Amino acid sequence: MPITVAIAGATGYAGGELLRLLLGHPAYLKGDLEIGALTGNSSAGQCNAFPAAPALTDRVVEETTPEVLSGHDVVFLCLPHGHSARLAAQLPAETLVIDCAADYRLSDPEQWRRYYGSEHAGTWPYGLPEMPGQREALTKTRRVAVPGCFPTGATLALLPAVAEGLIEPNITLTSITGVSGAGKKAATSLLGAETMGSVRPYNTAGQHRHNPEIVQNLACYGETPRLSFTPVLAPMTRGILSTAVAPLKSAPLKSGKNPREVYAEFYRGEPFVHVLPEGVLPNTKNVLGTNLCQIAVEINEEAGTLLITAAIDNLTKGTAGGAVQCMNIAVGWEEVAGLPTVAVTP
Amino acid sequence: MPITVAIAGATGYAGGELLRLLLGHPAYLKGDLEIGALTGNSSAGQCNAFPAAPALTDRVVEETTPEVLSGHDVVFLCLPHGHSARLAAQLPAETLVIDCAADYRLSDPEQWRRYYGSEHAGTWPYGLPEMPGQREALTKTRRVAVPGCFPTGATLALLPAVAEGLIEPNITLTSITGVSGAGKKAATSLLGAETMGSVRPYNTAGQHRHNPEIVQNLACYGETPRLSFTPVLAPMTRGILSTAVAPLKSAPLKSGKNPREVYAEFYRGEPFVHVLPEGVLPNTKNVLGTNLCQIAVEINEEAGTLLITAAIDNLTKGTAGGAVQCMNIAVGWEEVAGLPTVAVTP
Amino acid sequence: MPITVAIAGATGYAGGELLRLLLGHPAYLKGDLEIGALTGNSSAGQCNAFPAAPALTDRVVEETTPEVLSGHDVVFLCLPHGHSARLAAQLPAETLVIDCAADYRLSDPEQWRRYYGSEHAGTWPYGLPEMPGQREALTKTRRVAVPGCFPTGATLALLPAVAEGLIEPNITLTSITGVSGAGKKAATSLLGAETMGSVRPYNTAGQHRHNPEIVQNLACYGETPRLSFTPVLAPMTRGILSTAVAPLKSAPLKSGKNPREVYAEFYRGEPFVHVLPEGVLPNTKNVLGTNLCQIAVEINEEAGTLLITAAIDNLTKGTAGGAVQCMNIAVGWEEVAGLPTVAVTP
Amino acid sequence: MPITVAIAGATGYAGGELLRLLLGHPAYLKGDLEIGALTGNSSAGQCNAFPAAPALTDRVVEETTPEVLSGHDVVFLCLPHGHSARLAAQLPAETLVIDCAADYRLSDPEQWRRYYGSEHAGTWPYGLPEMPGQREALTKTRRVAVPGCFPTGATLALLPAVAEGLIEPNITLTSITGVSGAGKKAATSLLGAETMGSVRPYNTAGQHRHNPEIVQNLACYGETPRLSFTPVLAPMTRGILSTAVAPLKSAPLKSGKNPREVYAEFYRGEPFVHVLPEGVLPNTKNVLGTNLCQIAVEINEEAGTLLITAAIDNLTKGTAGGAVQCMNIAVGWEEVAGLPTVAVTP
Repeated sequence: MPITVAIAGATGYAGGELLRLLLGHPAYLKGDLEIGALTGNSSAGQCNAFPAAPALTDRVVEETTPEVLSGHDVVFLCLPHGHSARLAAQLPAETLVIDCAADYRLSDPEQWRRYYGSEHAGTWPYGLPEMPGQREALTKTRRVAVPGCFPTGATLALLPAVAEGLIEPNITLTSITGVSGAGKKAATSLLGAETMGSVRPYNTAGQHRHNPEIVQNLACYGETPRLSFTPVLAPMTRGILSTAVAPLKSAPLKSGKNPREVYAEFYRGEPFVHVLPEGVLPNTKNVLGTNLCQIAVEINEEAGTLLITAAIDNLTKGTAGGAVQCMNIAVGWEEVAGLPTVAVTP
Repeated sequence: MPITVAIAGATGYAGGELLRLLLGHPAYLKGDLEIGALTGNSSAGQCNAFPAAPALTDRVVEETTPEVLSGHDVVFLCLPHGHSARLAAQLPAETLVIDCAADYRLSDPEQWRRYYGSEHAGTWPYGLPEMPGQREALTKTRRVAVPGCFPTGATLALLPAVAEGLIEPNITLTSITGVSGAGKKAATSLLGAETMGSVRPYNTAGQHRHNPEIVQNLACYGETPRLSFTPVLAPMTRGILSTAVAPLKSAPLKSGKNPREVYAEFYRGEPFVHVLPEGVLPNTKNVLGTNLCQIAVEINEEAGTLLITAAIDNLTKGTAGGAVQCMNIAVGWEEVAGLPTVAVTP
Repeated sequence: MPITVAIAGATGYAGGELLRLLLGHPAYLKGDLEIGALTGNSSAGQCNAFPAAPALTDRVVEETTPEVLSGHDVVFLCLPHGHSARLAAQLPAETLVIDCAADYRLSDPEQWRRYYGSEHAGTWPYGLPEMPGQREALTKTRRVAVPGCFPTGATLALLPAVAEGLIEPNITLTSITGVSGAGKKAATSLLGAETMGSVRPYNTAGQHRHNPEIVQNLACYGETPRLSFTPVLAPMTRGILSTAVAPLKSAPLKSGKNPREVYAEFYRGEPFVHVLPEGVLPNTKNVLGTNLCQIAVEINEEAGTLLITAAIDNLTKGTAGGAVQCMNIAVGWEEVAGLPTVAVTP
Repeated sequence: MPITVAIAGATGYAGGELLRLLLGHPAYLKGDLEIGALTGNSSAGQCNAFPAAPALTDRVVEETTPEVLSGHDVVFLCLPHGHSARLAAQLPAETLVIDCAADYRLSDPEQWRRYYGSEHAGTWPYGLPEMPGQREALTKTRRVAVPGCFPTGATLALLPAVAEGLIEPNITLTSITGVSGAGKKAATSLLGAETMGSVRPYNTAGQHRHNPEIVQNLACYGETPRLSFTPVLAPMTRGILSTAVAPLKSAPLKSGKNPREVYAEFYRGEPFVHVLPEGVLPNTKNVLGTNLCQIAVEINEEAGTLLITAAIDNLTKGTAGGAVQCMNIAVGWEEVAGLPTVAVTP
């Protein structure tokens, strides 16, 4: 019996990327995975809704209801935050529900209320297998909260430095994202005419909703960092470049530890994290369409700081790829199944 | 014994796209295809030459010589035109040589001399399986001339109209291409600062080297068309949109033949040509990274013309994907193996 | 007494470009032109509405009403089509009303109904001074219909060929436009994520509303051409490249007339039309921000066709620059006043 | 007698922007400024070298020699660093020489040798009138060192914070630049296919040559800051967004000083620095083609840091606009003459 998969919010950008990955997944190609209901909200009833996937030409978008979604083994939720809780509550406990929205990411209800302005729905296992304990937790759960795109890049960039005590907990993070991160919603500020040929910061100075999620992740070793996070919108469709700077602790340097080797050691065996050789810097183009995170580790000796630059594809490792990776773990497939590691470039 | 594959010119754009496709090819994943020598010219000796493919991190680019290339079962040539002939002559007859350059595409030595200014090397079976007789020919050859990117789009766009006598042989073709079509060569006119935010025609009025190749293809049913071909450079990395207009013959219309249905019928069973439903137009974004050609067929009643708009990815169906499709046919694998049909979009 | 100018629809793209031109106009700098009411619809009441023009930091957007607009000497209307008629009817007859919408461009009510689906408002003098008789007409009118952006490029590209009988009246036109042409309206199909990195045709096969306007302009010498017009959206903010092809009449060629010289002669003295030297092709980048039209004239001998490629900035010569040019003529200022001729490039 | 101006390196991006500004300068329009020799290196002898400026159609590019440049009142040098010293030494002392290269920017010969690997040519008055004492110095000099593009953005962003003691001297700066910053030189890494659709850091961790220049500028009040500077290349032609973060000193905050007001006060009267209203963030699009710097000042209370985000056009305020501003001051014209303040947007 094949495993059946539904996607709620299939006509958005995360949904589309999920479809690309699932249609190329070895389980799908062998008939072990079946793509069931594809639902939408304003797009419900629409034909020709998947112009980038000819295999789905005959599909009609269905309504996003518990009835339509129930009966699938796996349900991906790609909805605006606030919608997942209601739906998830009406899905059977044995359904593997993988939520790409923020609803179940934060553990502190206070932070949720502050940043999202509504009641906290709860906390699910966090879908970043590279974090301590998470891979194990994902094998046992039927509910997964997929990380946000900025937190994925930032956490992978900073986790080893925090874990190994390389840096003081004062972190400056500038993350430059492509425009698909804002989702497929009509807004004049996201028009091509507004976004091409220009960069601009937004939700600065602690206002971005991914701020508490990044802090929560980096606090996993006990110390809560002070984070100055500046998101910047750049004229490209996909990709996030994180540039993170923090003061080096003097101890590790004196011990002769090379931060790049610390990173390489920390991520040894991780299939999707690539610590770059010395002298090579990341480029979002080199991870486009892949589930990879490329990381460069450098010391600025005069400033006494550690500089981490890291690239991911916000829609792949940053959302849908991460979600498929979690599905693979939870279902018991190979973790890397169906997840590209060669970029579509140039 | 796995089939071994070498790529001459592996660090260019066609070479890189070949690597992406081969590393995802089912034969590679099963161990039936092995990636052998990757050669370059100015890049020979280089490390970290494939930053988009972590699996190749340890590779060093080799010299492009017959010695290095010999001993492989399949050799892809991704070199500037004029280099293939010399190399191919020194490769064993039983080696499957797939040339992505122009050297062996034209059948008329006169046209070759006129457009390329050198002696004609010869003519090999033409790697466009969708053309009459070509799929069959490809099963029997050890030498393949992969079509140019513009000719691939234009031929697929116009072949049914020519075959079925829908149009007069006066064709106006404007083809808009992304900048990767010019290859990875340093030239100020191809800098990001010159190409972003701007469109410009080039090699107009019959001067483009793909002009005789398009005419040759469209003459395959006997009548040589008069072609007005205008290539245009657009600010995107990949993709070709062909817009082709020709006067409708009155006969087929009177017979009640619907041109869109003629196209759908002509391409029935073709795995990589997608004749779009009425009212849907192609978008290069919807074929990005795939081996697909999307085609819309329309009549302009007032003008009395047929309008064909067609989208391909110049590096995939337009070069490397077409080349892999030919390899699949020549080797006897499934024609569609390893060739994506879901676009990386947005 | 300075001349006072109001802009209805000042927060859109045409309005913004008008403001850029007016704020740099010599009459404004000398105090002979005063910028009065700036009105909006959804933006009425907004502060900080002109972030690209610090001189207007303190302005608040006003309501678009006849009361607000009355009392100005010049009123530019930058509204969606269908709104100009009502407003214009309520403005004093002595007010110079320059309409950037389509309402008063077409002379045939039938064509208006067919393409716009409403009642025809009438026909005003057409704001393309380069057309026969129009410059003279503009000196005498208080009502101007500014041409559409596609018709401006196409008409300038084809007018001499039609006037001098160089071509048969079967014209194929592919016009590639930047995304600002669609205006500042929220629509998912115009998002940055949808438009970057991709080209696509739209409103093809005679459906685009600029189709009848182009035909009307080219019919000004008596013969109505058959036009196959394909608009294409390209990933840039500004610019239109028109590529026009038509069969050459044999007579003029036999007479030894060189089409490029015919064009140069036709446009001699025109300040904003630049017929390029032989071997030089237009580039939208080279007219960005200017009121110029660059035109290349070529013969395709084998095809027997004339190829015209022409570049304009859709927001400058294609809309706001053309509008200011008309104002200059109607007011009696130097026609070229305040209209840039050096591109902002790269 | 008009003032005569020559440009050495007129066919590069800085030279082209200078030409755009000079051709629109009121002194040029009144006949008080004459554009003399336009020289190039590889482009010497070229015709049609200024396709964006029809007024210069008949110009032929001259050789860059002291003989050609001598006899002009003003000479702009837009050459790669290392070339200015030799040329400048051969120009008359009374010639106003404005150098857009780095040769005379640094005061510390040791830093010059370290970053540029050659002998230090000397130090000229620094062309950033907004810095303390510089405007005065520029009125008296015949030699000007125009600042680098990154230092212009960074210095304007940070100067008030340093001057007023708002921050601790540990500054993290991420500056995102368009590709024209790299100049018009053929390099595969700067091709459109490499730069579109992607962001990447470069010359990180203190290696960028603008690093010592930024530190030198910020040290002008006595304290040398520790700077972590990360340049990032973004897919746009023009623009720099600087994001700067530093720990707030507690004293000024306790005193009730609002950092945004401190900035507004510091720059009061500066014609080209625009401190944005609360809640408004900079956007490179909003300064494109202008000599403006837009600055937003924010506090991140949780992190205890000051965040400054600032936008300039790297070719205008960042190079050629700054150079014209210096010329205006040195010649005695109005400082703002010929310098646009309304952006070309969208």
